[in-house]
Amino acid sequence: MMQAARERWDFLTKPPGSLGKLEEIGIRLAGIQGTVFPKLEQRAVVVMCGDHGVTAEGVSAFPQEVTGLMIQNFVNGKAAVNVLARQVGCAVHVVDVGSRVEGELPGVRSKKVRAGTANFAQGPAMTPEEAQRAIAVGIEMVEELHQQGVQAVALGEMGIGNTTPSAALAAVLTGRPLAELVGRGTGIDDEKVLHKTRVIEQALAVNRPNALDPLDVLAKVGGLEIAGLVGVVLGAYQRKMVVVVDGVIAAAAALVACRMESGAQEVLFASHLSQEPAHRVLLQEMGLEPILMLDMRLGEGTGAVLALPILEASCRLVAEMATFADLGLDNT
Amino acid sequence: MMQAARERWDFLTKPPGSLGKLEEIGIRLAGIQGTVFPKLEQRAVVVMCGDHGVTAEGVSAFPQEVTGLMIQNFVNGKAAVNVLARQVGCAVHVVDVGSRVEGELPGVRSKKVRAGTANFAQGPAMTPEEAQRAIAVGIEMVEELHQQGVQAVALGEMGIGNTTPSAALAAVLTGRPLAELVGRGTGIDDEKVLHKTRVIEQALAVNRPNALDPLDVLAKVGGLEIAGLVGVVLGAYQRKMVVVVDGVIAAAAALVACRMESGAQEVLFASHLSQEPAHRVLLQEMGLEPILMLDMRLGEGTGAVLALPILEASCRLVAEMATFADLGLDNT
Repeated sequence: MMQAARERWDFLTKPPGSLGKLEEIGIRLAGIQGTVFPKLEQRAVVVMCGDHGVTAEGVSAFPQEVTGLMIQNFVNGKAAVNVLARQVGCAVHVVDVGSRVEGELPGVRSKKVRAGTANFAQGPAMTPEEAQRAIAVGIEMVEELHQQGVQAVALGEMGIGNTTPSAALAAVLTGRPLAELVGRGTGIDDEKVLHKTRVIEQALAVNRPNALDPLDVLAKVGGLEIAGLVGVVLGAYQRKMVVVVDGVIAAAAALVACRMESGAQEVLFASHLSQEPAHRVLLQEMGLEPILMLDMRLGEGTGAVLALPILEASCRLVAEMATFADLGLDNT
Repeated sequence: MMQAARERWDFLTKPPGSLGKLEEIGIRLAGIQGTVFPKLEQRAVVVMCGDHGVTAEGVSAFPQEVTGLMIQNFVNGKAAVNVLARQVGCAVHVVDVGSRVEGELPGVRSKKVRAGTANFAQGPAMTPEEAQRAIAVGIEMVEELHQQGVQAVALGEMGIGNTTPSAALAAVLTGRPLAELVGRGTGIDDEKVLHKTRVIEQALAVNRPNALDPLDVLAKVGGLEIAGLVGVVLGAYQRKMVVVVDGVIAAAAALVACRMESGAQEVLFASHLSQEPAHRVLLQEMGLEPILMLDMRLGEGTGAVLALPILEASCRLVAEMATFADLGLDNT
């Protein structure tokens, strides 16, 4: 099917290859959907939310309570991801898989596995069973979206402190040094970046995650919303749904999923390149190339949602452009 | 106004600067439109078309006749730019400012200054008067769009052979060596790239364009559709309309316009980074950073049209996001 799609792209009225990555995207979409004319009309962003015990170590520029305030903001439809999702015609699903917010908020799917992870600088963030339950939340969510006819899922997340577990996951799963991976998150200074690096070093020493066992790594130095996104990727791969990766947290989740199920890479598309240094490393590890260069570092799924119209453009081009034959020309 | 916009962006519910270039774009748009809440709802792509005498030297992978076939394709609404413009809600205006197509095609604005340029390997491509008339066509077009309420104009073009004058313009206006500027255009091989380079060297030797006189450079080694786009930029700058630059041909035109009217840079936004090597050089010269990395090299305005939703996203974010005060937080 990808071969048939490649031929179709070469017959369209343009120099072969001149639409660049739009052609490669279209060919990959054809492979996933099993048609030369793929469609991405139905789409959703899943915003997995969770809190992080490691915030007690002072690794973030914002207090942990902001997670809950932002969940309220999502429900009100006034966060960045809501605005972008409205613009591009994308449903927003907010899932509380592990925040410390008490009670249930209307408009939030309450699927709390536990109220935030433990401080992984002192022990495992969660148990393997908890990680598995959070993964199941993601799989369940995507199953429901599949039944609604959703063709593309954008990975979104909220969780103050979650660039810290993302850098830890990247370090363990790629083997790259922390100095190349730890970034400013929501805006910490150089000194705090060093502190954050030391906290992660300690976490790795205390927990000794087994790089060959992705569930072990995820449970020990991951996060609940990250595990939820792992489930979204695994579920989407099962259902042959397109997954659009967002920033460093979503990319860390995607890599965990790929280590659990190597074929999962097939359904993944990168959106933007974040300012977080681990993001580039994670995307490279999965063989993904970003299409938007906007220096974003917000998360929530904002970059992934913004990339949806670009992926959709591939679908429209292959379906609506004239061929050389239509113009009475050979494509030589 | 840009300062007021910057403050507004810092009050929105996100870490300061975390929306990266979307914030910078929003601040620049505020400066252009004179409001913290700019709008880009009305937009159009102007596809300037022209032929090039230098195609007689065998510099292109496609025969010159393809210009006319593609004009027909635009009119039929089946070229890549039409598909993308339909997707993002952008009007398409096709202007024949200098093709060799005979007669008038319905749906094409016939504003032919002359039927293709002369072969600039042997003398000037056109006279300064002809270049000025082609510029006037662009100014007139944009004036009409302004009266229709259009806020953003994407620069599109069609003209077999037109990466050759674009590389020549880039060489003269930036002073960089041709070896860094000449590319494969619609798909020529290494040998033909060398030939194309030699043809441009000859053109520069024969014509001796004066780098300090942009009209002289444009007339001697430019093109009619390029001059038309220079007019679009100049007209848009007068009317404070946003201009989205496309690939190497549009960027060459934009740089000519900036050399004629240095303030014109204020209204320019880059869209994508093309595979043509001169593109990066031209964008840098104008201080513009591309936002899409799609390895496109088609022209027609395709990259510029595809970037319109990204610019629009900036407008929507600043208008629709909650502020920290809305959440009951200081933005500290």
